[in-house]
Amino acid sequence: MKIALIQMSCGENPGANLKKAVSQIKKAAQRGAKVICLEELFRTPYFCKTKNEKNFDLAETIPGPTTEMLEPLAKDLKAVIVASLFEKTKKSVYHNTAVVIDADGKLLGKYRKMHIPDDPGFYEKFYFAPGDLGFKSFKTRYARIGVLICWDQWFPEAARLTMLAGAEILFYPTAIGWKKNRPAQARSYHGAWETVQRGHAIASGVYVAAANRVGAEGKFEYWGRSFVADPFGEVVGRAGGKQDEILIVDCDLRKVEKTRREWTFLRDRRIDAYQGITSR
Amino acid sequence: MKIALIQMSCGENPGANLKKAVSQIKKAAQRGAKVICLEELFRTPYFCKTKNEKNFDLAETIPGPTTEMLEPLAKDLKAVIVASLFEKTKKSVYHNTAVVIDADGKLLGKYRKMHIPDDPGFYEKFYFAPGDLGFKSFKTRYARIGVLICWDQWFPEAARLTMLAGAEILFYPTAIGWKKNRPAQARSYHGAWETVQRGHAIASGVYVAAANRVGAEGKFEYWGRSFVADPFGEVVGRAGGKQDEILIVDCDLRKVEKTRREWTFLRDRRIDAYQGITSR
Repeated sequence: MKIALIQMSCGENPGANLKKAVSQIKKAAQRGAKVICLEELFRTPYFCKTKNEKNFDLAETIPGPTTEMLEPLAKDLKAVIVASLFEKTKKSVYHNTAVVIDADGKLLGKYRKMHIPDDPGFYEKFYFAPGDLGFKSFKTRYARIGVLICWDQWFPEAARLTMLAGAEILFYPTAIGWKKNRPAQARSYHGAWETVQRGHAIASGVYVAAANRVGAEGKFEYWGRSFVADPFGEVVGRAGGKQDEILIVDCDLRKVEKTRREWTFLRDRRIDAYQGITSR
Repeated sequence: MKIALIQMSCGENPGANLKKAVSQIKKAAQRGAKVICLEELFRTPYFCKTKNEKNFDLAETIPGPTTEMLEPLAKDLKAVIVASLFEKTKKSVYHNTAVVIDADGKLLGKYRKMHIPDDPGFYEKFYFAPGDLGFKSFKTRYARIGVLICWDQWFPEAARLTMLAGAEILFYPTAIGWKKNRPAQARSYHGAWETVQRGHAIASGVYVAAANRVGAEGKFEYWGRSFVADPFGEVVGRAGGKQDEILIVDCDLRKVEKTRREWTFLRDRRIDAYQGITSR
């Protein structure tokens, strides 16, 4: 079962970004991908690098224009699409949301980013209300998948709960990078980012697939390097750090159960002793 | 603040192993180590590779002969000692336990292994009742430390809860290895073992220090490679895979707080949404 991660740079024009994404999705499907995941907020530049009220104009409803474009595409290609959108609700609440569209073109559901960062250049708390839908899995035609978004990557609780909800693959639409000319910290940032996610794969016996933004936007550079780790944490595919790329990886879903039987962590979880996780 | 991990091979004679451990502890202290951690069940061969009722004879009480030997040693060396022991309670319940002895020679407390494996060659469920003391930290003279034991390494919940209890360094006395002549799987086993623990360091902003057994015992070979990862998951010291070694690493405890301020994961944990962790 092939999955595809669409790693791309984004320009100022949402229409052009969407067109590019559609084109890349088609190419991925032509190459046999059955589940195709876009990066975080692929329709726009990563606007959270500043706080600007005008950026709220970039939001859309779900369902809305983007899902209306992607649904028939998914049906046509017989491929599942995971798309990250800037969501505006009817009550004018804004969320960093991902939708899952099944291979028959139906909107299976959405996940709203639960952990919201507020770091230099990542001012998401200004824009997004924390997710209110919890951690979920989606039973698509080809696999039971979970979706988590960027900052969620650093929280083992998010990965664990999404696996417990049934996910065999965790998709992470992402927009992570660093300021240009910051070589010293570079390696440790990227290394930690990949390592903590590989840890989730190992601890829960799931595939982890992170689709990251690439390219320069203002003072920032998104580091690409989208990757897939297998259920024992081995990186089985990794994109480059500079360019658009469609990363296609063949996932053997039998490996999920096989790994969980060989490394029987789930049997031994001390659910009687984990209550403290819900406190600070 | 220097810490030491005592990686050693063990023979059949508990007295001789203890003598060797004491000698290595003294050397570590001479080299400036302030917290010294022994590997899992260092007094004996890793007896859980078979199920044998006679092995229960190897257990001891806590306090008991080993703590009585290590307490004055800790006081004399002004060093904290973390020692993994096969504990027998007054009610004849057996635990895989670690004690923390402070630098003044006082027994600060104990941790009983919470996650008990039952893998080929690791038949611990036959010997040990699951821990009943929960996840803890110990305020020693030099640092607030947590202790977890071997199989606990694979559980992000254990690391998180021990950090939440206050730990700045997580010590993992360990006895992990593989069957001899198993080169194909070797790399992925060791890689996953180190990676998942580095993930704990990253997610919680703690030092992680794993002291592993080394050397051949029957059909098994323990893979050594004791290591320390810093609070952003970088391996800052790693022992070899074949021989006895005292791994000494200088830990800058200011890095714990510094890392947590730079990478503000703890601020954003969704404690309102983690209840599901306590279910299967």
